[in-house]
Amino acid sequence: MPPLITLTTDFGTRDPYVASMKGVIHSRCDNAQIVDLTHEIGPQDIFEAALFIAEATRWFPRGTVHCVVIDPGVGTARLPIAAQVNDQFFVCPDNGLLTFIAKESPLHAVRTIKNEDFMLDAISATFHGRDIFAPAAAHMASGAPFHSMGERLQTITMLEMPELRRDIADVIGGIVMHVDRFGNAITNIHRSDVPGGAVASVHFSGTAVEQISKTYGDVHAGSACALFGSSNYLEIAVHLGNASEQFDLRRGSRVEVRF
Amino acid sequence: MPPLITLTTDFGTRDPYVASMKGVIHSRCDNAQIVDLTHEIGPQDIFEAALFIAEATRWFPRGTVHCVVIDPGVGTARLPIAAQVNDQFFVCPDNGLLTFIAKESPLHAVRTIKNEDFMLDAISATFHGRDIFAPAAAHMASGAPFHSMGERLQTITMLEMPELRRDIADVIGGIVMHVDRFGNAITNIHRSDVPGGAVASVHFSGTAVEQISKTYGDVHAGSACALFGSSNYLEIAVHLGNASEQFDLRRGSRVEVRF
Amino acid sequence: MPPLITLTTDFGTRDPYVASMKGVIHSRCDNAQIVDLTHEIGPQDIFEAALFIAEATRWFPRGTVHCVVIDPGVGTARLPIAAQVNDQFFVCPDNGLLTFIAKESPLHAVRTIKNEDFMLDAISATFHGRDIFAPAAAHMASGAPFHSMGERLQTITMLEMPELRRDIADVIGGIVMHVDRFGNAITNIHRSDVPGGAVASVHFSGTAVEQISKTYGDVHAGSACALFGSSNYLEIAVHLGNASEQFDLRRGSRVEVRF
Repeated sequence: MPPLITLTTDFGTRDPYVASMKGVIHSRCDNAQIVDLTHEIGPQDIFEAALFIAEATRWFPRGTVHCVVIDPGVGTARLPIAAQVNDQFFVCPDNGLLTFIAKESPLHAVRTIKNEDFMLDAISATFHGRDIFAPAAAHMASGAPFHSMGERLQTITMLEMPELRRDIADVIGGIVMHVDRFGNAITNIHRSDVPGGAVASVHFSGTAVEQISKTYGDVHAGSACALFGSSNYLEIAVHLGNASEQFDLRRGSRVEVRF
Repeated sequence: MPPLITLTTDFGTRDPYVASMKGVIHSRCDNAQIVDLTHEIGPQDIFEAALFIAEATRWFPRGTVHCVVIDPGVGTARLPIAAQVNDQFFVCPDNGLLTFIAKESPLHAVRTIKNEDFMLDAISATFHGRDIFAPAAAHMASGAPFHSMGERLQTITMLEMPELRRDIADVIGGIVMHVDRFGNAITNIHRSDVPGGAVASVHFSGTAVEQISKTYGDVHAGSACALFGSSNYLEIAVHLGNASEQFDLRRGSRVEVRF
Repeated sequence: MPPLITLTTDFGTRDPYVASMKGVIHSRCDNAQIVDLTHEIGPQDIFEAALFIAEATRWFPRGTVHCVVIDPGVGTARLPIAAQVNDQFFVCPDNGLLTFIAKESPLHAVRTIKNEDFMLDAISATFHGRDIFAPAAAHMASGAPFHSMGERLQTITMLEMPELRRDIADVIGGIVMHVDRFGNAITNIHRSDVPGGAVASVHFSGTAVEQISKTYGDVHAGSACALFGSSNYLEIAVHLGNASEQFDLRRGSRVEVRF
């Protein structure tokens, strides 16, 4: 079976950066199957990317190598790393990208990427995606042993995670973590945070919804609903509409569940 | 040969939805070759997607499995279906997506997707692209027989198609069906609707063009032309310009051909 | 190993044009691996595409076939061509797309694409990407000999290249060639144009930077820097910011290096 290498970046595709990485990978792993996850992460938005890969990569088969390059600190002291999680592999800068993945599944092993056999001959100071991460991914997908990447690392950089507020009885306070293309506002309140699902109301932007729906089409077109989405997080949506625009919901907006 | 699975969605690529579907497919069909057709269909725009797949999929080889997920009714009563057309396969919600395809080529067979062996273990109410359509496509590409998908279906949902107006002698009245990236406005007037090609003039937005061109470069830069495009439908274009902007042409705008 | 075919277009992906090309390629080369380089070249922007492919394609392995379709003159007298450069192949219209590639590496061979065996049966006047270039790429990737494409061509169309100004002692005058997604403004001043790297200052938009940095993070967040980027061209950047917006730098903006 051809080895799978996925790419997640904030490069967009209009510039030659992603294309260059693909060339490097195909030059070093001639039967690689490259899978574009996204190149549309907001420029240098590590938080968005960390959330994205935690959700997207869980569906891939064992052995997949995920190459993730959102790298505002390229060329500075931050380390390039390789990590093994649940029989999948990640290569990325050590800047918090693995935060949500590591919260969910303990990392099996982490190493720096230091072996120069797995890098391009000339390393630029500004594009490690092409010079370090793409060739490292290609060599891992070609079967280079994980321990040959570099030295074992004990800790990785973690982002601060927004915590749920529970200081008022019968209320959980969360925030919007991500707004998707449909304007659905996805919060950090997980289905398992809500005991027995006994929700009385969901409050946001000065308004409230009095029940939890199963799916968007449970309410009339243009009406707001709250539901536990496909990742089991509470989201605010408008059926055939855009909740983010209608209620000015953005990343960081507060959402409250009352019982 | 690796089996081909194409993806057409309105998900964009900034959210993890498409990436999750790719993971599911690669997990269930390990030599699949996934081909992105588009993820930029307007949110929940079934008409646009129906037109897109009718044009794009005709060029693919027999055996290709097309997974098409524009699904505003996800989780409601609308059925997930599999269809066979001209030795190619489609999996999609039954909401009109196959309208233009079925107008052109009779569907060979249609079945509901009901076999739970071909679904994820847990089915969310809001993301059947990942939970039902992606695994169904993977299993079909892996050789699962078509009849094992579910029950035979006699009819599918069809969109209302805009008809040509022919109530005035020597005039055909059509509309713009799609505006492309270049601002070309593509109508529903087919080359075969125009007897002998004897067009006197093409009227739109209060202006007219007096002849049919062969290609964009037949007129001066900045000038409007009318021609039968690469799908044999009449289109209005501006050479090295943008006809949609210059003449305020949008989907639904009227275009008239006079003889 | 599956043969590699890359695609570079200005088609976007919302229209069925790229998808149709992929269908044609898979129909004519059943084990092809198609690699999307970009479909986001500005509409009909040959200069941008020429620069893009010169940078992106250098990283691909020998034997790769690059199909490049930015084609404002489709259907007019401009020729479809195939070119061999450094053991890689290009198929594209002869309109200047190979300018930067040919400046760097002499073209090994150029032929017109004239052999009708390598085209679709019906050739439209407006979409040679689908009807001529995609099938030509598929046949080349399938092993059709280069000389079978058509007649040998002695010269190709070249774009006028912006030259560096050196009319004042100790000053090199260049221009911005491209602004990337991060707002970095990349000039035509190459590292090798600067003797010994002894730069005193870099001037642009009425401001100046007094040194050459190694990477973006060498300056404070929000500060401007000048550095030789990953392609060895001088670029103006703002650390964690957007130089193009902050200093109104666009393609064609002047940048001066003083010694």
